[in-house]
Amino acid sequence: MYPQYLNYKMPAEWTTHARTFISWPVQDSMCYPEDYENVCRGYAEIIQAVAEFEPVTVVVNPDAADMLPHFIKNKNIEYLFIEHNDAWLRDNGPTFLVNDEGDLSGVNWHFNAWGGKYTPWDLDEELASKILEHTRVRCFDAPLVMEGGSIHVDGEGTMITTEECLLNRNRNPELSKEQIEDYLRKYLSVNKIIWLKKGLHGDETDGHVDNVACFVAPGKILLQVCDDSSDENCSNTRENLKILSEVSDAQGRKLEIITIQQPPLRTYNDRRLTLSYLNFYFVNGGIILPIFGGEAETTDQMAIRKLSEIFPERRIRTVNGMAIIREGGNVHCMTQQMPAGREK
Amino acid sequence: MYPQYLNYKMPAEWTTHARTFISWPVQDSMCYPEDYENVCRGYAEIIQAVAEFEPVTVVVNPDAADMLPHFIKNKNIEYLFIEHNDAWLRDNGPTFLVNDEGDLSGVNWHFNAWGGKYTPWDLDEELASKILEHTRVRCFDAPLVMEGGSIHVDGEGTMITTEECLLNRNRNPELSKEQIEDYLRKYLSVNKIIWLKKGLHGDETDGHVDNVACFVAPGKILLQVCDDSSDENCSNTRENLKILSEVSDAQGRKLEIITIQQPPLRTYNDRRLTLSYLNFYFVNGGIILPIFGGEAETTDQMAIRKLSEIFPERRIRTVNGMAIIREGGNVHCMTQQMPAGREK
Repeated sequence: MYPQYLNYKMPAEWTTHARTFISWPVQDSMCYPEDYENVCRGYAEIIQAVAEFEPVTVVVNPDAADMLPHFIKNKNIEYLFIEHNDAWLRDNGPTFLVNDEGDLSGVNWHFNAWGGKYTPWDLDEELASKILEHTRVRCFDAPLVMEGGSIHVDGEGTMITTEECLLNRNRNPELSKEQIEDYLRKYLSVNKIIWLKKGLHGDETDGHVDNVACFVAPGKILLQVCDDSSDENCSNTRENLKILSEVSDAQGRKLEIITIQQPPLRTYNDRRLTLSYLNFYFVNGGIILPIFGGEAETTDQMAIRKLSEIFPERRIRTVNGMAIIREGGNVHCMTQQMPAGREK
Repeated sequence: MYPQYLNYKMPAEWTTHARTFISWPVQDSMCYPEDYENVCRGYAEIIQAVAEFEPVTVVVNPDAADMLPHFIKNKNIEYLFIEHNDAWLRDNGPTFLVNDEGDLSGVNWHFNAWGGKYTPWDLDEELASKILEHTRVRCFDAPLVMEGGSIHVDGEGTMITTEECLLNRNRNPELSKEQIEDYLRKYLSVNKIIWLKKGLHGDETDGHVDNVACFVAPGKILLQVCDDSSDENCSNTRENLKILSEVSDAQGRKLEIITIQQPPLRTYNDRRLTLSYLNFYFVNGGIILPIFGGEAETTDQMAIRKLSEIFPERRIRTVNGMAIIREGGNVHCMTQQMPAGREK
């Protein structure tokens, strides 16, 4: 039985959360393991920022238990000991659904570490089902390799994603675009899928949509853009802007598109860092926004102002977006919302 | 503003729980610190038994973080790091309330370590409000020294307690019985308080009711009795039985009284252990029942049979009642239910 047939759907991220799940980083999985302490400090800052707004459960490897009180002084954080290979719960965690009666369930996607890039991933392939078991909500096993960061929904039937990621041969080579669409409809109860082309240049996730575009309300899209024609992101964002300006959503609406300037290019060890303001995360009553400082100060301020205008009723809580970005992700990548609803 | 005026009341323990809170034991606070590992094992067994039925959050001192994965293998347990002096969350935790709309709140009683018996208790005096802050439910500070183990309610306006504890000069010497009753009415929305005389002989809590009597349904009381006239508990239980058989509850009902035989007397270091089957704990769909083995095998079996008859729809999950009893309490003393309801 598919979730769609039971009226379960994925709510928009801005609907009320019961709590946020975040995985504690794992040194062995890191691109720069020597940064582990700094990355832990970065995680701790973001975890505590989210906890200002809603309950947070941190998924921790048992052998990291003794570190936690050292890094996280806030008492209002809960810990769950589940072994995992890597962090980034957006991508290897469950996607929670809610039905018309307010009952929760969740989708357990297959996970292959972003197209087989990082071994091992056996524990992370099992993580979503373990979290669903813990939260005592029904688990739907989807026969699709997918990460939560590659999709966004408006809660009213529309999804945005990127071809670069979802149609990548390193994910589901045996499935056609139509078959993938069919699964997304059945597991998330969406009926209109908007395919952008590419995500951020250099994004090792193969262009996750959560670095380039997101819904800010039904019918309203925020898109990170680049005006510098020497930057690969310039043509990518123009292409996406064109698609969005021509498409209509599941409710037949033309989309209102709001743009936000990307931060200046920054590299580390000759690799482009995937800096994005769109990797922000909705929390109850607020938004956790990564900002980057230094040369990015101007665009930082523009991003803060833009989000404040779009969401006058939400507190824009900025965090240091440089703290963990060298590991490839940011606030949205590390979080996974569990919507308010009945767990039983 | 008192909770009563806002329609908040303490639900009966058998109504559906959102989860159970349990504090991890603290070696420094123990009567027999050399038993710490055994006691931790006993706690771990009971924590995992409760987790078979519902979510469990364990409140842990930060410096005990590294022990947890060693003792608790079940993944479905959450941990919350809050410093505390001693365990027994029934007594130093909050008492959760629910209003007609299903909103949660909680009462933060004053706590003085069972009449000032064990120092220090400064952290435990603050524990209930910290847990309420964590669960984001409204906190009502009650100007009354009280432990949760000294009361039971039927959820329909009736409370039972003991004079030995609530009127003890070591708790609220400045308050009259009428003033104490008045606070109980205002903070728990009860309107009939049944005063038993004494609890178990030798109980260092000064006769907590949760070792001698409890509601099993509105209008129905379970009482642990003793037939051996050479045992101090014999006259105590007869006295309580007489009170219960003459009184009516908040709804005007005469009480149906069911009795359960106490286990045989057992001592440790010349101190009587306060063995009680009534220190069981309701969980969603079950009951966690301490049994004592050895010479108690006959009464153990009688208790299991009795509870199975009273609760045919609940699974009676027995645990080793000897594991932690030398520290003074058992399953009910260590647990605190958070009822199902809205946390926000």
